[in-house]
Amino acid sequence: MSNFRIGQGVDFHQLVEGRDFWLGGVRVDHHKGALGHSDADVLLHAICDALLGAAALGDIGHHFPDTDAQYKNIDSKLLLARTRELITEKGYAVVNIDATLCLEAPKIKPYVPQMQAIIAQLTGVTIGEVSIKATTTEKLGFVGREEGVVAYASVLLEKAAR
Amino acid sequence: MSNFRIGQGVDFHQLVEGRDFWLGGVRVDHHKGALGHSDADVLLHAICDALLGAAALGDIGHHFPDTDAQYKNIDSKLLLARTRELITEKGYAVVNIDATLCLEAPKIKPYVPQMQAIIAQLTGVTIGEVSIKATTTEKLGFVGREEGVVAYASVLLEKAAR
Amino acid sequence: MSNFRIGQGVDFHQLVEGRDFWLGGVRVDHHKGALGHSDADVLLHAICDALLGAAALGDIGHHFPDTDAQYKNIDSKLLLARTRELITEKGYAVVNIDATLCLEAPKIKPYVPQMQAIIAQLTGVTIGEVSIKATTTEKLGFVGREEGVVAYASVLLEKAAR
Repeated sequence: MSNFRIGQGVDFHQLVEGRDFWLGGVRVDHHKGALGHSDADVLLHAICDALLGAAALGDIGHHFPDTDAQYKNIDSKLLLARTRELITEKGYAVVNIDATLCLEAPKIKPYVPQMQAIIAQLTGVTIGEVSIKATTTEKLGFVGREEGVVAYASVLLEKAAR
Repeated sequence: MSNFRIGQGVDFHQLVEGRDFWLGGVRVDHHKGALGHSDADVLLHAICDALLGAAALGDIGHHFPDTDAQYKNIDSKLLLARTRELITEKGYAVVNIDATLCLEAPKIKPYVPQMQAIIAQLTGVTIGEVSIKATTTEKLGFVGREEGVVAYASVLLEKAAR
Repeated sequence: MSNFRIGQGVDFHQLVEGRDFWLGGVRVDHHKGALGHSDADVLLHAICDALLGAAALGDIGHHFPDTDAQYKNIDSKLLLARTRELITEKGYAVVNIDATLCLEAPKIKPYVPQMQAIIAQLTGVTIGEVSIKATTTEKLGFVGREEGVVAYASVLLEKAAR
């Protein structure tokens, strides 16, 4: 059968005053940040979940439970690095990653190259194999009211050559 | 051209008192259940739609209309079995399935192995080729208020060898 | 490495009185239409974003900014045609497209064959390689209140033979 696997992830976090706003491994300048047990990096979490899902390794809550003190305020880059180890152990390599951030503000375009570089390095691909897109929800729903942020990610994996 | 096809599905159901809660072919213990014409199994519906979409066979509403009495309270496992027949007739086999349930409660982790076994059996793959993930929406929106449940699914198909 | 790339897109628009309702390149008969700088074709926008994402070419807001007067009320079919040129220049061809429209009304099934034909022609595939699905959100959220419409798209690309 095929050597390919696809995966998808979606993650949600509330936006609140008084928190740093981490997206794609980068601290984004904003008057609100995402609330969570870890650094609440919604983009890295969606990518972790897509990678784990493609390899049928459970989900991010299984591997990094938000009830576990060791993950309190943890840098999600460490979670993505560990996720990559898990898929490597299972024999898979990343082909490409495509993700969309849904948020009303701020504009994340200036941060995208840095996000791509961080994610590429952590997942063993080139910058040209990592895509980060963004959209508002046109003022609709909790994203439109700036109460929350959502990220979607899709990934393609391939069985690594030995 | 390529022998691969990707598909995606998303499904929504209201959560109400007095209904059984079917997810991934399993009855989940909860004080609410999903409202719908069929058994309202949001996870199996999203997977059906992803499979149909990958093969460009229309959508679940086309094949199993919720205005048709024969689908009243139907077990969605029958819909998934029929969906698999449709993609088999079109010459495709499932490579892998990855899905995410968005719901505030209950924890579905204890049910995941059983869901994987059911879905794998109905779609002709191994348990290791079916991934079921779950996330809350961090109290945001209708999922966060426990008024509804959402499922996302991605699938990869391959033209079957003859 | 692999010649395949996957991409995903999601787009949102408000529904308001007094606008034409463009979906998949077709004008749909409805008492509301989608609000936006362009013709606000949520389905074509999600597909553009999925194609751009798969090829890591940025997002639709980068290529066709909604602050640019040249895109005011533009026919989104022109945006999809331009998007296809961009992925072709990068060496990719479309394998298949699968999308889901989330809207409460109207029923879009009668329009689907025409949407498929338009999208297939604009992206260089056959009608059987384009799938358009639809679902309501069962009255939930802003889609359920008919305040907005959402589209999700997934695409598979392959490095074109030379």
